[in-house]
Amino acid sequence: MTTFKIPNWLNAPIHSIDEQARNAALTRQSQLTKPPGALSQLEDVAVQLAAMQGTKQPSADNLSIVVFAADHGIAAEGTSAFPQAVTGEMVKNFASGGAAISVMARYLKAQLEVVNLGCINDPGELPGVVNCILGAGSANATREPALTTQQLSNALNAGRAAVQRAQQQQCEIFIGGDMGIGNTASATAVICALLDQPAASLTGPGTGLDATGVSRKVQIIQGALNLHRPHINDPLEALRRLGGFEIAALTGAFIACAQAGLPVLVDGFIASCAALVATQQIPAVRDWLLFGHHSVEPGHTRVLDAMQAKPLLNLGLRLGEGSGAAAAVPLLRLACALHNEMATFAEAGVSDAH
Amino acid sequence: MTTFKIPNWLNAPIHSIDEQARNAALTRQSQLTKPPGALSQLEDVAVQLAAMQGTKQPSADNLSIVVFAADHGIAAEGTSAFPQAVTGEMVKNFASGGAAISVMARYLKAQLEVVNLGCINDPGELPGVVNCILGAGSANATREPALTTQQLSNALNAGRAAVQRAQQQQCEIFIGGDMGIGNTASATAVICALLDQPAASLTGPGTGLDATGVSRKVQIIQGALNLHRPHINDPLEALRRLGGFEIAALTGAFIACAQAGLPVLVDGFIASCAALVATQQIPAVRDWLLFGHHSVEPGHTRVLDAMQAKPLLNLGLRLGEGSGAAAAVPLLRLACALHNEMATFAEAGVSDAH
Repeated sequence: MTTFKIPNWLNAPIHSIDEQARNAALTRQSQLTKPPGALSQLEDVAVQLAAMQGTKQPSADNLSIVVFAADHGIAAEGTSAFPQAVTGEMVKNFASGGAAISVMARYLKAQLEVVNLGCINDPGELPGVVNCILGAGSANATREPALTTQQLSNALNAGRAAVQRAQQQQCEIFIGGDMGIGNTASATAVICALLDQPAASLTGPGTGLDATGVSRKVQIIQGALNLHRPHINDPLEALRRLGGFEIAALTGAFIACAQAGLPVLVDGFIASCAALVATQQIPAVRDWLLFGHHSVEPGHTRVLDAMQAKPLLNLGLRLGEGSGAAAAVPLLRLACALHNEMATFAEAGVSDAH
Repeated sequence: MTTFKIPNWLNAPIHSIDEQARNAALTRQSQLTKPPGALSQLEDVAVQLAAMQGTKQPSADNLSIVVFAADHGIAAEGTSAFPQAVTGEMVKNFASGGAAISVMARYLKAQLEVVNLGCINDPGELPGVVNCILGAGSANATREPALTTQQLSNALNAGRAAVQRAQQQQCEIFIGGDMGIGNTASATAVICALLDQPAASLTGPGTGLDATGVSRKVQIIQGALNLHRPHINDPLEALRRLGGFEIAALTGAFIACAQAGLPVLVDGFIASCAALVATQQIPAVRDWLLFGHHSVEPGHTRVLDAMQAKPLLNLGLRLGEGSGAAAAVPLLRLACALHNEMATFAEAGVSDAH
């Protein structure tokens, strides 16, 4: 058990998957006018959604994207190619509609919300931004725990609250994105702790470090791991000591989605780190996770393997913001359309295989 | 040169790519609020489209999908898991809106046209189906050339005519799909001839043969190769002797697109076979080809490598009909939206890298 009192709601049960709906969906897929399995991952994801949503007519139309933003104390060590000021600046860019995820949300007709958990330069009140400030960024994990127990608790709650707002909008698919200069360093540290790996085996360039920069980043992450590992006895404590506000909020959001029976489309490296914390803490959360994109950040492969996850896309993206998941949404929608609208062999009068 | 008089239009020049538009698009991508290259393939495809369309604002909104359907004489040897009657039955299914590509075209708001080049059971006049019957399927390539010289010429012309109709609809992206029981056998034979490979190295299960079936298919294809190879002295002759009506029509369509300056989004194995014939015949056609999906049909990897092509998707699809390309269309549209609508660092007041 963790060394602090976790919010009570984390102990609530995880929603059950509807196995009857899954079987009905599998039967329907076998009757549609195509060779069995010829639509492969598009069949799989339609069946998964039917089982999650407990329906014959799965849907991914109503989509909520929540980008959690926060600064990271560890960035002061020089782990990123960009200055920390960018986190707050990007929050403004999300709000004014110019960021990648803003454009994607418009294209997808998705609800877009930004939750600002604390940046070194506070962007202030902005339309579409929910302020839930836990501090001017997390602490520097090379010296002390990144989050206090109270901050962890509040961050988890902030994630859950975002899911509750999404549910009020009749959300059918939840995407959690991240913005935080330095957050690949924090996420890598958390993942190393959870998968018992040295920093060198998982650290990558993030937004664009060169080889020298990656090498320094390895040493910084390994330093943080050495400091905290003796005190880490569960996934949430790894998250608290090595993570960040937005990674913790994503973790809370994913657990809340699984409790509410709301399918999550997991984004890239940072969101997958939160998914790993959530599933190591509560394994049944895994049932509610779909995966959008395989990041080029090298540690992502290990995280995906640990969750036996096979993302829909592999486009070389490494942006965060929820962009990898957002790019996969049209495939979910196509999969649903195919499942719901294709004719069966009987309906179309088409001959089946020999 | 081929042994028959090819249609004159094949000798018309290929449209030039706009290098100025490409450079402007590259410059713009470097100014958008994201780490350089963080959107990777979505950046690449937006830049390619800008260069093809000669514009600052690339677009993939207006889409034409043409499915070319035909039967294959070689199927009589038992190369497919499905009976040949399915080709004509599926033409009816396309027309009535129940096939996978029908559903996808609706979802994408695309023009969908079916060109029936000749099936063993003629489906007759149907809405949305253009009849351009060259015979009740191609001849059995294990015994004689699959197409006569006149049929090859007519099939190439049918592909070009479909492109001309698409252009009248202000088409911005052209997708050519295929339907034809037995056509993975024909396509494999053509590709083996063009890449100088034995049948065993490229033959796969198509719509779902088991290992014994694949093994027999290898022998059938190798038999056709042995019969025709001594007479094949150019790509179009390989297409004529070993291909099929719809593969030839796709070849004509892709060449016509390249002449017209219309970007092609190439589908899976069958369409890639046609693209290989087209690019081996006229290398500059390659400039106009984008690739949608990496098929699980094992020979597809070799064909893609030969054209140095990297498809956007790899979802395990093996359906044909244009479905792999159609599934990639939302990524093209997203790439255009990101390119056209994202804010620059200067516009958003976001700090650039260190």
